[in-house]
Amino acid sequence: MNISARNQIKGVVTEIKPGVVTARVILDIGGGNRLSSVITMESVEDLKLKPGDTVYAIIKSTEVMIGKD
Amino acid sequence: MNISARNQIKGVVTEIKPGVVTARVILDIGGGNRLSSVITMESVEDLKLKPGDTVYAIIKSTEVMIGKD
Amino acid sequence: MNISARNQIKGVVTEIKPGVVTARVILDIGGGNRLSSVITMESVEDLKLKPGDTVYAIIKSTEVMIGKD
Amino acid sequence: MNISARNQIKGVVTEIKPGVVTARVILDIGGGNRLSSVITMESVEDLKLKPGDTVYAIIKSTEVMIGKD
Amino acid sequence: MNISARNQIKGVVTEIKPGVVTARVILDIGGGNRLSSVITMESVEDLKLKPGDTVYAIIKSTEVMIGKD
Amino acid sequence: MNISARNQIKGVVTEIKPGVVTARVILDIGGGNRLSSVITMESVEDLKLKPGDTVYAIIKSTEVMIGKD
Repeated sequence: MNISARNQIKGVVTEIKPGVVTARVILDIGGGNRLSSVITMESVEDLKLKPGDTVYAIIKSTEVMIGKD
Repeated sequence: MNISARNQIKGVVTEIKPGVVTARVILDIGGGNRLSSVITMESVEDLKLKPGDTVYAIIKSTEVMIGKD
Repeated sequence: MNISARNQIKGVVTEIKPGVVTARVILDIGGGNRLSSVITMESVEDLKLKPGDTVYAIIKSTEVMIGKD
Repeated sequence: MNISARNQIKGVVTEIKPGVVTARVILDIGGGNRLSSVITMESVEDLKLKPGDTVYAIIKSTEVMIGKD
Repeated sequence: MNISARNQIKGVVTEIKPGVVTARVILDIGGGNRLSSVITMESVEDLKLKPGDTVYAIIKSTEVMIGKD
Repeated sequence: MNISARNQIKGVVTEIKPGVVTARVILDIGGGNRLSSVITMESVEDLKLKPGDTVYAIIKSTEVMIGKD
């Protein structure tokens, strides 16, 4: 399936912190950058996410802000 | 100012496509990755954004989904 | 690709209203319900979206509010 | 009150999974579709949400992505 | 209708900037604060929004970030 | 750093409810208004947030809906 979300960045899961309803997932996307994601625990289980998995961070353009020094 | 948003990724503006209310801004964040952002035209003007600017993409963790093949 | 987003609802594109940066896409998801989506024009072009296409509306759980009379 | 959010879909609460800060609420919206929502525990208590309640899922258009096979 | 969104702030519309798909609406919420909103043009028309209208800004808690100097 | 987010509203932290992955933070923004925010626990710790802190609520325009009676 192709998705309209303009940002689909390849990365490797480095950490999963489970909560009750949500979990926090950390990705290493290379170039010294990491991405933090909060998704439901059900998603973690459905995708069988675990550290070392190669995945994609998917982000809709309207959710990306810009900061400038 | 420090911001709660967990994702603050350094990049260089490569393209700005102006619209009426919103604009699309493309960043090169290195490692072969680009990020697409849709912000208001007023933001583009206030930050005086132009191609070549070094900026940060700021993304709240709750806006990051995960895809897995 | 499997996506963490819990909501993936099948529908048919009934209308596309193009803008400059963004477009509005209307889906018929059956049961008398329609869904309205605002995505970038680039997404409309990349997915070659047109009325009659069978697609999926994808919505992260954290974006769904509840209203009660 | 009328709300700008274009998507207001009637459904029935089928499940509430409480967490500490947030809860997950599942709605049956008919036509074989369910919707998953993550809202605060305070919202669940304020709206006195319980399985069987008829409610509306409210989703802003900018939060709806499109996927196409 | 009661809505799960925790933030419902009363204000007065001071400006509407129409675009093609979206519009920008500015509210004066008192205490020297204004709020900027981007909604669809269809919403502006459906709600018959115009400067001087008393309205509510509605914001889901998961969309509010915190900054600290 | 200047941020594209159009809404940056000064307030005082009045309450922090910690969860496992996320926390809820309540701000008093004056004029009788409060704002509710859900951010990660890591953010609360990184910003060393505590009741009494003067902070800013930061909200992207695309996340602000309008309600009208």
